[in-house]
Amino acid sequence: MIIPDIQPFENCVFCSKAVTDKSFYSTSKFSAIYNLAPILPGHSLIIPNAHYESLIELSDQDLGEMMIFARKVTSVLRSVFNCDGFDWTIQDGASAGQTVPHVHLHIIPRKPKDLVDGNEWYSKIPESEVQMLDSENRERLNDIEYNKITTRLVEASRALNK
Amino acid sequence: MIIPDIQPFENCVFCSKAVTDKSFYSTSKFSAIYNLAPILPGHSLIIPNAHYESLIELSDQDLGEMMIFARKVTSVLRSVFNCDGFDWTIQDGASAGQTVPHVHLHIIPRKPKDLVDGNEWYSKIPESEVQMLDSENRERLNDIEYNKITTRLVEASRALNK
Repeated sequence: MIIPDIQPFENCVFCSKAVTDKSFYSTSKFSAIYNLAPILPGHSLIIPNAHYESLIELSDQDLGEMMIFARKVTSVLRSVFNCDGFDWTIQDGASAGQTVPHVHLHIIPRKPKDLVDGNEWYSKIPESEVQMLDSENRERLNDIEYNKITTRLVEASRALNK
Repeated sequence: MIIPDIQPFENCVFCSKAVTDKSFYSTSKFSAIYNLAPILPGHSLIIPNAHYESLIELSDQDLGEMMIFARKVTSVLRSVFNCDGFDWTIQDGASAGQTVPHVHLHIIPRKPKDLVDGNEWYSKIPESEVQMLDSENRERLNDIEYNKITTRLVEASRALNK
């Protein structure tokens, strides 16, 4: 189903063309975006294209479709980054650590011993979100690195439409 | 839809009657279980009743239904524990930190300043899972405390069927 009228929400970074143009795979409702400052290789975000602050706002239908979409993208990420596991996490509400008020699911593909402490990645999420906000004072992938990865992901995602 | 033949998987704690009997809300496909050693008040798990090790194994239909079920339970938990936010997380695969090989989604209801470090809860998850395995050497809720909470949750969950 096509959503006929998606209005970007003013001042929302996940509604901004600068971010949505980076999507490596999308449908009419959802987009997959490679993180500008991945916590681990493959770290990506799933967002609804329409502006929802909270998961609570999605219809049952869209909530289900978002997770099916996320699982498809996870299969691409696991394949491209040669991972056998993954973490999914959603922070909903400022009290839960949500820093960008537009629903987003983090996908972190995992492989054995990719971190000294297996949960170390989680504490890095807010920092990474700030980097999505284009902070000048944090390290991030340069354009060449970013484009090289997303080109691979665009290619690998083509199979999802077959 | 009723699943006609759910076979508990041998030696799986989330298939054991000791755990499934503790469910405060369930349907034919999914159950909500209050954590024996909650990281924060309200910390609960959503599990499919059938034994699936990975989220990858669920049908699209069941994946969607699991998330809709989880969202309903989240609304009960937010209400009972007076929270305005929540974290959801899934660890899929041993490399991702999954310690019980039966799909489970953690729901952590959140309120402002409930932790010194907003992400501190995450590093506690594996410890909590070990407690679900009934380790004798870790602190956990006693039966009276546990039953008091789950009785409230059973009551609050009745509205979900209306």
